[in-house]
This record gives sequence, structure tokens and C-alpha cells, in this order.
Amino acid sequence: MQDLARRLAAGDRRALARAITLVESTRPDHRAEAVALLAALPPRQALRIGLSGTPGVGKSTFIESFGLMLTGQGLRVAVLAVDPSSARSGGSILGDKTRMERLSRDPRAFIRPSPSRAELGGVARRTRETVRLAEAAGFDVVLIETVGVGQSETLVAEMSDLFVLLLAPAGGDELQGVKRGIMEMADLILVNKADGELRPTALRTVADYAGALRLLRKRPQDPEGFPKALPVSAVEGGGLDAAWAEMQALDRWRRDNGRFDRRRAEQAERWFRAEVRAGLLARLDREPAAGSLDRLGTEVAAGRTDPVAAAAEMLRLLE
Amino acid sequence: MQDLARRLAAGDRRALARAITLVESTRPDHRAEAVALLAALPPRQALRIGLSGTPGVGKSTFIESFGLMLTGQGLRVAVLAVDPSSARSGGSILGDKTRMERLSRDPRAFIRPSPSRAELGGVARRTRETVRLAEAAGFDVVLIETVGVGQSETLVAEMSDLFVLLLAPAGGDELQGVKRGIMEMADLILVNKADGELRPTALRTVADYAGALRLLRKRPQDPEGFPKALPVSAVEGGGLDAAWAEMQALDRWRRDNGRFDRRRAEQAERWFRAEVRAGLLARLDREPAAGSLDRLGTEVAAGRTDPVAAAAEMLRLLE
Repeated sequence: MQDLARRLAAGDRRALARAITLVESTRPDHRAEAVALLAALPPRQALRIGLSGTPGVGKSTFIESFGLMLTGQGLRVAVLAVDPSSARSGGSILGDKTRMERLSRDPRAFIRPSPSRAELGGVARRTRETVRLAEAAGFDVVLIETVGVGQSETLVAEMSDLFVLLLAPAGGDELQGVKRGIMEMADLILVNKADGELRPTALRTVADYAGALRLLRKRPQDPEGFPKALPVSAVEGGGLDAAWAEMQALDRWRRDNGRFDRRRAEQAERWFRAEVRAGLLARLDREPAAGSLDRLGTEVAAGRTDPVAAAAEMLRLLE
Repeated sequence: MQDLARRLAAGDRRALARAITLVESTRPDHRAEAVALLAALPPRQALRIGLSGTPGVGKSTFIESFGLMLTGQGLRVAVLAVDPSSARSGGSILGDKTRMERLSRDPRAFIRPSPSRAELGGVARRTRETVRLAEAAGFDVVLIETVGVGQSETLVAEMSDLFVLLLAPAGGDELQGVKRGIMEMADLILVNKADGELRPTALRTVADYAGALRLLRKRPQDPEGFPKALPVSAVEGGGLDAAWAEMQALDRWRRDNGRFDRRRAEQAERWFRAEVRAGLLARLDREPAAGSLDRLGTEVAAGRTDPVAAAAEMLRLLE
């Protein structure tokens, strides 16, 4: 384990891939090794950028263009995905490789698809650990992408330093479709496809979102002017440098004001508490608890025991 | 406890109110009494009707009119609320009494506002138990109402025999606003305000929803023609008898086909499993676990311990 941690810290990509496979495993012995590995990692910090965008907004093209711009500046970029649907479709792995072909061949980039686990909580747990592994392996920027499905955006925002929303040019009606909660989490709204015929619509959409963002109460974690809306063109590359400059400016302000450290501290504590809860509930899947749960569940379904009384009995067995 | 169960079974309203206060209490000795009480209840079954409608659709007026129609037929009606927001606003109790003034004075009716607990899961747990208490007290119909907030509709559908969606007359665009998942849970969609000037719009909205419902796959738990959309007027009372006839027809079909019992059995088993999970997690709030959790949480936030390692330590303490 110390050897894997050492090779990982030296930036060895194969060690990183092996470590990720280890944290994604559900085997108890692997889990114990993963816990030991995570505790042995050097305390490096990347800039963690959460990125949400529904299919069709050009998210893969954006990640490829944005990622290549960063690696072109000498930065090392890891791309991780949180996609609760990929477990079922299974198409995410192939998709990531084909859609981000140039970035996937870049030696400064590392792309890892969503762990194939149907349950969102499980995906989030393993992705948090993968973020730590990528940081320890010396990556400067960790992009955590998600589709806007259910709670996945909240979970990704919860493990990011900055949260970016990628949207398509849209009319006023569609603007309403972005939930207020998501708007409130966003540090930066990027309206993609600000090129060719769509450019005027994209610019108008930027103005609409900028107006909507001004209506939200100013947040203590933000300097003047944030959150912001900007136009980008993933296909032509326009606006990517400006978007990156805004991300860096916001990151610098938060670091200077202690907001960065405070957010990381709060996230780490919430992560710890979520791990404890998940670990506690996992005991219900182990024998002999799992068998008792099934037996009592059958009794309850058959109407021979009251649900609350059966639960009290089950909890006594778990004392 | 046996005495309270006996008085409750005799239909004593004060005993019911006391029993509800007991199940809503978080004191450990009260909880033990509540568990014993629930196990001692007679196995009576009311028709449990879940009702969802956002503020403004006339839900209180509908419940008052519909409830009075049922009590007018000699039926005893209990109205319970699942409102995750009422804990904060605190306005629900006063609101229920004023908005359903006639029903609240009806000796055959019993109205109980949402338990004041901020967390939706807690509200759902206590409401499930209150439903059982109302059934044991001999109520024929238990109406469980909720506002369409977050997961509250799913939780109410999960504790109901029938799930009814009350909607306002609307244009085509607003129709899109009803989430597909909610549509799929609904057994009956009632479009309110089918009176006066709004009547044509209401009838058109009924046709729109009926069309949308036909697009959904037919469900094995439904006879031909269900789920249905119907117009009602809570203010004038129009359509309420037709709506009740449809509810009874669907209920009878499901009972005859074993669907009613199967649904109750599945709900009871899920309730049991949810109780076990909640009870297990509640151990984290008890000493000495709570103190250890806080101490380790502080260590993690300060960066002195890794979240995953700290969680592993906490779980060892809980063995």
C-alpha cells in the first residue's frame, strides 16, 4: 500500500488507475486497502471544478477544448464523471473515449468514466475518493462532470471548489427550466455555442442569465460581480480563456479570504459524516443482519407483525 | 397502553389525539409506548387516499367539500397532512382550522396538521403511524394531503391506496410542468375550478391530461380506463360524486384482484425497512456516539484526519 501511495504521488498513471480500481471495489479486503491508501496520500490540492450540463449542450466538446487549453498551458487535468445513468446504459466509457479523443491521448490529461454503480450515493462516495487520488497524483485541475439528473448536481457541487453550469442558447421560456437551486449553486454560467448563427441567441441568453443571477441574493463566499454568466464556443474555442480567467480570479479571492479553506473543511466534515452513515447502513447487508431483515420483512408483508414492532426487534438484534 | 388502545378502538377522539401526540414525540420513553400501542391496534383498514396539489389549486376547499360529502353519507373521515414546509412557517395548524372550518366542526371528521418536524423523512414516519391510529379508531377514509414539494408526493403515494392529483385549469405549457414521475403515480387527476368562466378551460385541461395519461404505459394494477382525468368544482361541489365513484370502482377492482393486499404488503415491508434504517442512523445522535462523531468531525475539518479513515474509526467505535 505504501508502495502504491508512493508511485501515485510520483505521478505514475498506472498507479493512479490501479488505485481508482481499488477504491471502486466493494470487496471488504479491497476496501480496507483503499482506506489505508487514502490515509497515506500526500496533502496536495488541485482546483476542483464541478461541471454540469445536460446532453446536447456540447459538454464533451467543451471539456475537450477547455482541457486542451489547460494542458497547453502546462497544467495537468483529470476528468471524472458522476453519471447515475451510466451504470444502466453502460455507454459512458465508450462515449468518453470517442467524444474526447484528443484529450484522452494527451499525456497531461487523465479521463475516468463514472463508476458503474446504479446508486447515486455510491457513485458520489467513490468519486470523492477518486478526486483525492487525482490530487495526490499531482493533477492541477480536476474536472468533475455530471449530467443534470436528480441530485447529481448537488453532489458534484458538494465535492467541488467551483461549480460551473454549461447551458445552451435558449429562449426565455427555457430559461425558466433551470431550477433556482441549481442557479444558486453555480459560480459561473457558461452559455455554449456562441458561434455562427447561434451567436446572437447565445449572447441574449447570457444577458438573460446575468439578469437572473443579479436577482439572487449576493453570497458571502463571492466577490463583487459573481456569480457571472459568459458566452463560450466549445467548437471554435472562443471565450474559454476568459472563462478560465474568471475561475482563477474567483479561486484566488476565495483563497485570500479564507473561503476556500473553510469550504474544503466543511466538505470534508460532511463527507466524513456521510461515510459513517453509509457504513452503518451497510451493516444491514451483512450476515446475520441481512437474513434477519429478510425474515422479519416477510413476516411484516404477511401481516403477522406490525412494521414498527418488527423494526424495534431488528434494532435490538443489531445492538 | 392497553387502555389507550381500547379507547382508541372504541372511536374515542381524545384517545386518538393523545395517541397521535405520543407517536409524534421524540422522547425515548414515549417512543417505547408508541411502539407498544401500534402493536396492540386492531387490524382495521380504512381507504387511504393520498392527495397532492400545489397552493392555489383550491386543495383546502376541495378537502372540505369532498370530506363533507363523505361524512354526509355517514362515513368517518380523517384528514392528515404531510407538509415539510409547515415546520418552518408554523402556519399550517391555523390554516387548516380556518380553511376547513365546516369540516373541522363535523363530528364525523378529524383534521390533524402536519407534525412540526423539519425533516421530511421524520414527517413521513410519524404520518404513517398516524394513518394506522386513524384506521384503528374506525375512520373509513383517511385523506393524506401534501403540497407538491420535493419528495413529499412520493412519500404520500407510498402510504396510500389511491393517489389523487388535484390540478388547476391550465394552458398547454403548464401541463408540461407536471413531472412525468408524478403523472405515473396518479390514479386520478382532478382538474379543479370547473365552474364559472374557468369551466371551458378546465374541461380542455381534463382532455389534455386524459391524452397525456393515455400515452403512459398501462399499469398492471389498473383496470381498463385508468388512470383517469376528471373535472371537479370544489366551490360548487360539481363532479365530487363522480370522482368518489371512480375511486370506489378502482378500489373495488384492486381488492377483487388481490392488488390492494399486495400493495399494502409491499408498503408495510418498505415501511419496516425504512424504520430500521432510521433507527440505526438515530444511534449516531445518542451518547457516546454523538460525542465521538463531533470530535472526529472537528479533527477532519481541521485537516488532522482523513474523512475516510475517521469514518472507519467511528464505525469501529459503533461495533
